[in-house]
Amino acid sequence: MTAILRPDAGAAVRRGPGRPRDDGLDDQIISATLDIIDAEEEVTVSRVVSRSGVSRAALYRRWPSLTTLITDALDVGRTVPSPISSNGDLRQAILGMLLGDSSSVTEFGYSEERFRQRIRLVMADRELQKAYWHSHVARRRVPMEQALHAGIDSGILRRDLNVEACFDAIAGTVYYQLVVRGDRMTDDASRTRIAAAFDLIWRGMLAV
Amino acid sequence: MTAILRPDAGAAVRRGPGRPRDDGLDDQIISATLDIIDAEEEVTVSRVVSRSGVSRAALYRRWPSLTTLITDALDVGRTVPSPISSNGDLRQAILGMLLGDSSSVTEFGYSEERFRQRIRLVMADRELQKAYWHSHVARRRVPMEQALHAGIDSGILRRDLNVEACFDAIAGTVYYQLVVRGDRMTDDASRTRIAAAFDLIWRGMLAV
Repeated sequence: MTAILRPDAGAAVRRGPGRPRDDGLDDQIISATLDIIDAEEEVTVSRVVSRSGVSRAALYRRWPSLTTLITDALDVGRTVPSPISSNGDLRQAILGMLLGDSSSVTEFGYSEERFRQRIRLVMADRELQKAYWHSHVARRRVPMEQALHAGIDSGILRRDLNVEACFDAIAGTVYYQLVVRGDRMTDDASRTRIAAAFDLIWRGMLAV
Repeated sequence: MTAILRPDAGAAVRRGPGRPRDDGLDDQIISATLDIIDAEEEVTVSRVVSRSGVSRAALYRRWPSLTTLITDALDVGRTVPSPISSNGDLRQAILGMLLGDSSSVTEFGYSEERFRQRIRLVMADRELQKAYWHSHVARRRVPMEQALHAGIDSGILRRDLNVEACFDAIAGTVYYQLVVRGDRMTDDASRTRIAAAFDLIWRGMLAV
């Protein structure tokens, strides 16, 4: 039996003569990990092995580190948003990302319960937090940050804009609703505050 | 033996003839609760009783609800900030609160570890989150919100300002550093982003 690693990170298939592809193992492992997280239990190798039915060796081959496994599991269902067209209305495009397709900017594309679990886990483990930040959150910021840079180049936005700080302020307002106020993204009051805050921030970003 | 409740909320003393005041019990209970939180154990009545050495009856008399006990414990060391003078430089006063005496606006007056524990606990329990918000966070917002209203009245800030949204954007930027990026308030990069974000938000708040 030969083991062939797929070139894409984090995913692997073993193939043997006459055997079906067993990509399914990745899903079994991720799904077991999410079950453990949702049950508010600590994710351990033993628990993942026992819930997924996948061998310890196969688990280690796919995810040599539990931290990576947990960040990948937490990221299920999330995608990097599409690039924002630089021709359209930039303000509307960002507001749409914020309040419409909220998955893009604000990390709330998955269920709120999963979001709360993610925050709980990362606040308990800074290494996991940093790993999740680098491998997932930072990547999802790129399309909006690129759009802001395009806005600077086209003269709509201030030349001296700190694009990272703009993103932090916009997304931070959303996090504040969920992490501090304990409100939901579907609450009208939250949506009103988010829109009002974005309005302020946008005004502050405009070239004079 | 008679039990006399002090008029101030959450604190009680029992006095008996010839017995010393036992105010100390409140501190013992709070301190035991913080020990349990810091040990990342679940706060239960049994654990508080056993760690504090205070009787179950005395505990219930002082804190009929565990939620209130936990919010009071998490609030130890925090104070409501002083009013901001409406005569001085409002921009500087807020920036000072943010980056200097950060306890006032941003909830980080206590150790970062305690802050991380607090977020962990409230994300696991929305009732606790709402209780902490109403009894503690919302009160600490008042001085800055009053200063912003004074800024509107004096004509510095826009008449149509959503003061709550301003606060959420400013404090949200700070939370983003700690909750999403996993950075520390003492990191230069974080402080630079917070100052830049505040600059944007302030510009957006100004009357035109």
